Amino acid sequence: MASSGTPAPSLTSSEPLDSATRDGFIRVRGANENNLQNVDVDVPRDSIVAFTGVSGSGKTSLAFGTIFAEAQRRFLESVAPYARRLIAQGNTPHVDSITGLPPAVALQQRRGAPSSRSTVGTLTTLSNSVRMMYSRAGTYPEGAERLESDSFSPNTVAGACPRCHGLGIAHEVTEATAVHDDSLSIRDGAITAWPGAWQGKNLRDVTAVLGYDIDRPWRDLSREDRDWLLFTEEQPVVEVTPQRDRVAKPYKGRFWSARQFVMHTLADSQSESQRTKVLQFVESGPCSLCGGSGLTRAALAVTVAGRTIAELNRLPLTDLADALRPIATAEHATAATSRASSGEGSEVAVAISRDLLSRVEVLTGLGLGYLSLDRSTPTLSPGEMQRLRIATQLRSGLFGVVYVLDEPSAGLHPADAEPLIEVLEGLRASGNSVFVVEHNMDIVRHADWIVDVGPSAGAGGGDVLYSGPVAGLADVDASVTRRFLEPTGDAEESREPRTPAATLELRDVSLHNLRDLDVDVPLGVLTAVTGVSGSGKSTLVGKVLAERATEHPLVTRVVQVDQKAIGRTPRSNLATYTGLFDAVRQVFAATDEARARGWTAGRFSFNVVGGRCEVCQGEGSVSVELLFLPGSWAPCPECHGSRYNPETLEVTWNDASIADVLAMTVDEAAGFLAEVPAASRGLETLRQVGLGYLRLGQPAPQLSGGEAQRIKLATELQRARTGHTLYLLDEPTSGLHPSDVELLVTQLQRLVDAENTVVLVEHSMSVVAAADHVIDMGPAGGDEGGRVVAAGAPSEVAAAAGSRTAPYLRRSLPSH
Amino acid sequence: MASSGTPAPSLTSSEPLDSATRDGFIRVRGANENNLQNVDVDVPRDSIVAFTGVSGSGKTSLAFGTIFAEAQRRFLESVAPYARRLIAQGNTPHVDSITGLPPAVALQQRRGAPSSRSTVGTLTTLSNSVRMMYSRAGTYPEGAERLESDSFSPNTVAGACPRCHGLGIAHEVTEATAVHDDSLSIRDGAITAWPGAWQGKNLRDVTAVLGYDIDRPWRDLSREDRDWLLFTEEQPVVEVTPQRDRVAKPYKGRFWSARQFVMHTLADSQSESQRTKVLQFVESGPCSLCGGSGLTRAALAVTVAGRTIAELNRLPLTDLADALRPIATAEHATAATSRASSGEGSEVAVAISRDLLSRVEVLTGLGLGYLSLDRSTPTLSPGEMQRLRIATQLRSGLFGVVYVLDEPSAGLHPADAEPLIEVLEGLRASGNSVFVVEHNMDIVRHADWIVDVGPSAGAGGGDVLYSGPVAGLADVDASVTRRFLEPTGDAEESREPRTPAATLELRDVSLHNLRDLDVDVPLGVLTAVTGVSGSGKSTLVGKVLAERATEHPLVTRVVQVDQKAIGRTPRSNLATYTGLFDAVRQVFAATDEARARGWTAGRFSFNVVGGRCEVCQGEGSVSVELLFLPGSWAPCPECHGSRYNPETLEVTWNDASIADVLAMTVDEAAGFLAEVPAASRGLETLRQVGLGYLRLGQPAPQLSGGEAQRIKLATELQRARTGHTLYLLDEPTSGLHPSDVELLVTQLQRLVDAENTVVLVEHSMSVVAAADHVIDMGPAGGDEGGRVVAAGAPSEVAAAAGSRTAPYLRRSLPSH
Ligand SMILES: Nc1ncnc2c1ncn2[C@@H]1O[C@H](COP(=O)(O)OP(=O)(O)O)[C@@H](O)[C@H]1O
Ligand SMILES: Nc1ncnc2c1ncn2[C@@H]1O[C@H](COP(=O)(O)OP(=O)(O)O)[C@@H](O)[C@H]1O
Ligand SMILES: Nc1ncnc2c1ncn2[C@@H]1O[C@H](COP(=O)(O)OP(=O)(O)O)[C@@H](O)[C@H]1O
Ligand SMILES: Nc1ncnc2c1ncn2[C@@H]1O[C@H](COP(=O)(O)OP(=O)(O)O)[C@@H](O)[C@H]1O
Ligand SMILES: [Zn+2]
Ligand SMILES: [Zn+2]
Ligand SMILES: [Zn+2]
Ligand SMILES: [Zn+2]
Repeated sequence: MASSGTPAPSLTSSEPLDSATRDGFIRVRGANENNLQNVDVDVPRDSIVAFTGVSGSGKTSLAFGTIFAEAQRRFLESVAPYARRLIAQGNTPHVDSITGLPPAVALQQRRGAPSSRSTVGTLTTLSNSVRMMYSRAGTYPEGAERLESDSFSPNTVAGACPRCHGLGIAHEVTEATAVHDDSLSIRDGAITAWPGAWQGKNLRDVTAVLGYDIDRPWRDLSREDRDWLLFTEEQPVVEVTPQRDRVAKPYKGRFWSARQFVMHTLADSQSESQRTKVLQFVESGPCSLCGGSGLTRAALAVTVAGRTIAELNRLPLTDLADALRPIATAEHATAATSRASSGEGSEVAVAISRDLLSRVEVLTGLGLGYLSLDRSTPTLSPGEMQRLRIATQLRSGLFGVVYVLDEPSAGLHPADAEPLIEVLEGLRASGNSVFVVEHNMDIVRHADWIVDVGPSAGAGGGDVLYSGPVAGLADVDASVTRRFLEPTGDAEESREPRTPAATLELRDVSLHNLRDLDVDVPLGVLTAVTGVSGSGKSTLVGKVLAERATEHPLVTRVVQVDQKAIGRTPRSNLATYTGLFDAVRQVFAATDEARARGWTAGRFSFNVVGGRCEVCQGEGSVSVELLFLPGSWAPCPECHGSRYNPETLEVTWNDASIADVLAMTVDEAAGFLAEVPAASRGLETLRQVGLGYLRLGQPAPQLSGGEAQRIKLATELQRARTGHTLYLLDEPTSGLHPSDVELLVTQLQRLVDAENTVVLVEHSMSVVAAADHVIDMGPAGGDEGGRVVAAGAPSEVAAAAGSRTAPYLRRSLPSH
Repeated sequence: MASSGTPAPSLTSSEPLDSATRDGFIRVRGANENNLQNVDVDVPRDSIVAFTGVSGSGKTSLAFGTIFAEAQRRFLESVAPYARRLIAQGNTPHVDSITGLPPAVALQQRRGAPSSRSTVGTLTTLSNSVRMMYSRAGTYPEGAERLESDSFSPNTVAGACPRCHGLGIAHEVTEATAVHDDSLSIRDGAITAWPGAWQGKNLRDVTAVLGYDIDRPWRDLSREDRDWLLFTEEQPVVEVTPQRDRVAKPYKGRFWSARQFVMHTLADSQSESQRTKVLQFVESGPCSLCGGSGLTRAALAVTVAGRTIAELNRLPLTDLADALRPIATAEHATAATSRASSGEGSEVAVAISRDLLSRVEVLTGLGLGYLSLDRSTPTLSPGEMQRLRIATQLRSGLFGVVYVLDEPSAGLHPADAEPLIEVLEGLRASGNSVFVVEHNMDIVRHADWIVDVGPSAGAGGGDVLYSGPVAGLADVDASVTRRFLEPTGDAEESREPRTPAATLELRDVSLHNLRDLDVDVPLGVLTAVTGVSGSGKSTLVGKVLAERATEHPLVTRVVQVDQKAIGRTPRSNLATYTGLFDAVRQVFAATDEARARGWTAGRFSFNVVGGRCEVCQGEGSVSVELLFLPGSWAPCPECHGSRYNPETLEVTWNDASIADVLAMTVDEAAGFLAEVPAASRGLETLRQVGLGYLRLGQPAPQLSGGEAQRIKLATELQRARTGHTLYLLDEPTSGLHPSDVELLVTQLQRLVDAENTVVLVEHSMSVVAAADHVIDMGPAGGDEGGRVVAAGAPSEVAAAAGSRTAPYLRRSLPSH
């Protein structure tokens, strides 16, 4: 981080303002963020620019860490100068100067701010238009008053269902939930839902005064009595003379039925624990008043194309488009009048639905036709989320900004790459620059310009090998990307698929869009599950297989290797995650110096009191919360990032302190710790999955999803290979350069060779071609998917008619 | 405001993305913000565009309310989609579509976020570079360690003076502050600074046990004893046997000297009121340790050009530039080494000082050379503040944004207009668009493009009369601006200056840069005070005259008519401010209906409980706090902005409710209330100052500074004219179109005709030419100013040699 308070581009930007900025380039000089080696590069504006290079080469450090971060910093500093100190602290990139840099918008793979009420409709703002359509162009019941747009949203006061307050979920008290043991009498506590202690006794006394028999078993009371006691809204007040109290002073007692009491507590109690307690006496389900839509009856009485807004919101986008098309293309539109009971066929209906349709078609074009407007965003994959946001940006009206995107092709079937390119071109056509960090060569080939970073990862990368039109990369010998950009047709010899050891027969599977599905998964081989987005791949692999695979005797263990972070704080890193740090700490505890001081391995942990720096509590950094920027970290002012107190660092082994070891790369540590078997085995595996460039202590939040997944894989690889383990991977190639993909596949093959089973969801056809077995889901997404379209060896699936994967797979298979 | 939740540019922006955005124009369609009449206008990017038109014509509504607000909304929505609801609520402008719109930055006349620690140096970020220069290129005392940049800032832990914590102000306890009556004995409370009650008695008892005579008058104690009691840092603990208490149990008591007690309370007390209380026992002044600089001794030992950083920060920018020039132009610079005790003459010194110098020269060029880096921003005028911020933007590195500026010429002497234009051109040269709302024709003439709004104000304006290159405006008959753009030379007949009734002789005036100044101010005439920025005009008029004018027997009252808002909440408006609303409420209270209901005038106030809407408490709107945007207001959901409850609105007078009256313009109300003398007199005066277009109930925060000033002026004009009043105005023309200036001058002349005196600070030469007397301050700003360069009739001053005003004034005088 630049020294705080010093604006980054200070010295060099004192040149006179020249017209160099006008010639269409962003000129970066002296970029040193992370592993960047004093990079100078010129990147054209108003273009689609692909940043390529192997994982860890520095693409992200250049595109996001330098260009985006600096643009963001400058703009925020100008609009909100008082936020300057906040911004400067965390996010001043290491760069001498950047000229010609417009404001930037980042669309990353992160999930949006978690809001359970956010849906596909709200995220894309399509819901606004849909509500406007119902308000202005809906068919209203005879005599009904026209409703405001807000009335069609469950999140507004005007629109929320009065029973469930717009949540769509209602709580009901039933006999089963309120009375847990119907052999008990009321006196003995039959009505479980009533409160305990004095208040419960009071209610029993009131009930007795009211003339009910509180000593008879509940089940022997009449139906009528039981219903009244449980559900009445009446609240008679009677005079009670406590029978067992010593001071028998009569008082007025009010009756509460079980339902009244529970509902009152839920609605009005100030005590969270009280509310949680009574929740066990209710059945929660879709609200019966609004059918789970959260809307008022008045709103639900309005229709468009014969559907309520709740029904329309539930349609997959493909069907929504079909429903809108006739309205949007209606001829002879009439002027809308507020008197007509239906606005359909009016000019405004045509205008709104045309607008909606064009926007929905962008989404279906991106392969998201299976999503519905009411799908809640927390259930979306990061790839789906990002594509929704990219498409939404088309409508933002922004001009002259730089969009920086993080692998927009992630999760995308090759068939859907074409429309994605069109969307990126749309952003460019409306006057913006589009920078993508991308591994998918189908996308990269369509860029206007390519910036190739490398040659390898970490300290071995960080140089710009090429910056220019795509075609020119072919002449750059040092580039690893070059080889993949234009497939040379020299695919390897075709390999005979392995024979399965057994078959896991899943029958009658129903989840999400899988309905009564029968599918066979061969064991002891490498299987790739393919299909367009929404076809059911993740559901099958991540949910069904994960839960049911151990039903088969030959599967003793199921391991999911995903891209989730290996930890959320700087306290986690690959050394702690893989366990090799334990071995390192033992080594330090065994030194003479440590023994003399009476220090055990615990002293060398930065996670417990003793050896660690107490200012940062061993994190090495302190958190800096920023306004619009993801939280970031600044080095600890006390230990300057070493994580330890000075005494601990006095102990060395082979001249290195424990902090020095954490600062080594995997490659360096492999040499340094060669004689420590417990450490060197793990280090070797990390190198095999291509992570030799990572520093041992690199905090988990700084690792990419791909790096995290490979660390997890390495951890698995170093375990004793028992065989009979099922490894499940969801798109392990996302974030990986084609050359890293080759490394990864080698490791997966070795797992299979050790008598394990590997099943992966995959879009990269070079990986699919290397599998023993392919299960192609489809034919399309959502309700149109969930079936097995083709299954068999790659060559068999490549030949299957009706498979959208087949044509792409064919190209990746060795030609005969 | 657009219906909430509906994105503004929805229907029309569904056109296919075209290349129209690439041809260099921002195209606004259907703008209806405030008084805009469905405006369609194309404004070029990468240009300097002036928005002109009479006050209230809608320039601000177009440039800020529409273009800037929409750009801001779009960008923030894209970078922070989760802030969407907040933004949508308050700031979605009324416009159908805008294409080709880049992100925008507004530089308004508002003061920055109030921070007493903000200075010219921090605002411009020049302080960062100055600190870097001292750190890397300063001359250190022999053997001293080089300090970090942070150590030269009193606002950092490393840099703050240990005594005053960087504030520069220290609190000292002296005998005079601690002992208020030295004839008292200690027992009777001589040491006023000691606490009262039990704690005070305890200290007196401790003092007695220590052997001091607590019954002798304070002044009779020895010097030594008194000093010890007041200032010692010793805190002896003694056993005290309370003498007068009934339960005489001995206890251990600790001694606190007066200073110890006060300092401890200031530093550690949790109680704000305790701290405030002891402040009366201290003398506050520059900290003696750091000399008021707030810095450590170590930092103050480092010099550049023979000056400490504190001294350098105190220099006027002109002198700072002189000090930097030799370093910046040093030949034979040496490589800096950390061993050398001085870095001056090193390459880094040259680089930093060159950068600093070029930035300082931009500021001196803008006529701000009299400011120093340590000048605190709250003491700057809005015009000074804005010019600092404009100049700072030159270094921001932003590219491709639209800067929207609010009358950047405000407060600028004609001589300083040229450099301002250069700065605006600098912003354009670095790839940005510069939009200025401007009345100064010297600036307007230099724009690339002009958007003239009009023809008149309020409902009579809101149309774009012309949008094109400046020259073309000459052909637009409807434009009021046209007449002023190219002075036609048809200046009026020269007028004989009035003869003063008397002269106010100010002698030996010393304040700010005025030193022992003698100045004569003629009474009973119109005097204009002129001079470049910082020459002392405001000090003379706003401070000295305001305080001392009543010394003269012919000045019985002094009235300052400034541009400050007439109120900060929607609760204030021109009707309440001018008092005419009282008359209106009386009229409503006198109706039969009101009498029947027993309602008095109070019922028709929106400021008290009774008639007002209780949801907004009569404000008509509710406050919406936004992140980066100035706080804004949304209409009250209950009364929809009427401010009253429904019953109150049932009472009507001539068919209008009280809310209807508030919704009328001054022009409309003048007709409606013609028979109500108490109201019509005030309305007439408002029309005379050109405010006929304002609505009576328009909330104060929506009024411009110019509108506010004219309302104040009208309020004064409608008062009975006693004569013998001195009216002081500070740049009353800022924010006024030349045609409005004419109206204003007529009113000022009428005040003088009624035997009052008017003194105004002014930069507009047409106004100066119309004065009876001119006092020209100068010759330059700061220490170079504070003197009277010329005084006399306009024609005399216009002929004065050495006056920077003279050449400009000559052009505005009738030619002979
Ligand atoms: N915040 C960070 N702090 C330190 N090192 C980092 C950080 N982020 C990434 N790195 C390292 O910098 C190098 C380049 O990373 P990155 O730019 O993410 O590469 P790519 O995007 O090409 O995969 C890698 O060695 C990575 O581990
Ligand atoms: N959490 C969920 N809630 C509801 N529907 C889901 C959820 N996850 C996936 N689906 C739906 O199940 C279908 C298959 O999705 P998924 O298994 O994610 O497909 P793929 O992995 O092939 O993209 C899609 O229609 C998708 O919308
Ligand atoms: N926030 C507001 N709400 C309602 N009316 C406003 C608001 N701001 C300005 N106005 C009115 O709109 C008209 C145009 O104002 P404005 O755009 O500020 O004009 P100009 O900048 O030309 O002086 C004036 O009648 C003014 O009183
Ligand atoms: N509040 C203040 N504190 C310190 N110096 C001030 C203050 N106000 C003005 N000055 C200084 O007094 C001088 C005259 O300023 P001012 O009267 O504002 O000039 P003018 O009105 O001609 O622009 C300038 O050097 C200015 O910096
Ligand atoms: Zn409901
Ligand atoms: Zn630390
Ligand atoms: Zn001090
Ligand atoms: Zn209200």
